[in-house]
Amino acid sequence: MNTSDWMDAIRWTEDGLVPVVAQDAVSGRVLMFAWMNRESLAHTVKTGEAVYWSRSRGRLWHKGETSGHVQKVREVRLDCDGDVLLLSIEQVGGIACHTGRQSCFYLRLETAGDAAAPHWVAVDPVLKDPDSIYA
Amino acid sequence: MNTSDWMDAIRWTEDGLVPVVAQDAVSGRVLMFAWMNRESLAHTVKTGEAVYWSRSRGRLWHKGETSGHVQKVREVRLDCDGDVLLLSIEQVGGIACHTGRQSCFYLRLETAGDAAAPHWVAVDPVLKDPDSIYA
Repeated sequence: MNTSDWMDAIRWTEDGLVPVVAQDAVSGRVLMFAWMNRESLAHTVKTGEAVYWSRSRGRLWHKGETSGHVQKVREVRLDCDGDVLLLSIEQVGGIACHTGRQSCFYLRLETAGDAAAPHWVAVDPVLKDPDSIYA
Repeated sequence: MNTSDWMDAIRWTEDGLVPVVAQDAVSGRVLMFAWMNRESLAHTVKTGEAVYWSRSRGRLWHKGETSGHVQKVREVRLDCDGDVLLLSIEQVGGIACHTGRQSCFYLRLETAGDAAAPHWVAVDPVLKDPDSIYA
């Protein structure tokens, strides 16, 4: 198997991307969801730090490049369909979300109570003021 | 807030879908990745069992409808960008993958060894023969 075979095993989207789930290796929390292209995945595997493809900015995104909250990659997994990646990572600083929270998934759907309609509630604490993270 | 507001808070794709990560509420394992449309999410929240949108079959997919391996939803979360859902679920039968494994993410990228190129290795056991699951 040559070096590119493992990349060819991935079913990339028409845009050349693959969805990525990042999970905290310590807490087990799902921290964030992002995308990679071939170049970002190659960087990730080579350097051991998560590098994503920012669709909004149209460029490689070394997670933590501004905040210092880099993600050290312990393990990379691929799913049965070959079209989703799962990273097990150590989250430097303990903060993955740009809001200063551990995880980007901090909005919980509340459905309890007969009278109340379902609604989203922010249930996780802000660990650090975003202004101080990105200052 | 009326009933549809919580759905409108989700940033659906142009195709009217949202990516969904399903995590085992007990083991913390990330079990699978799939998609939902509004109808499938409404069914999920109403019935308490995961209903996805099958892109390949173009129809609602009540997970476990054939295998019996339904997913009882304990919690639904939304991420900071409002464009990804995370389900915390109880996986009936302990098997989420159609290959008979606990998780769909059973392929691990092996990079150890100077000589070996990276390659994917199936590292999780098959718990049940797929032929007997879907017989």
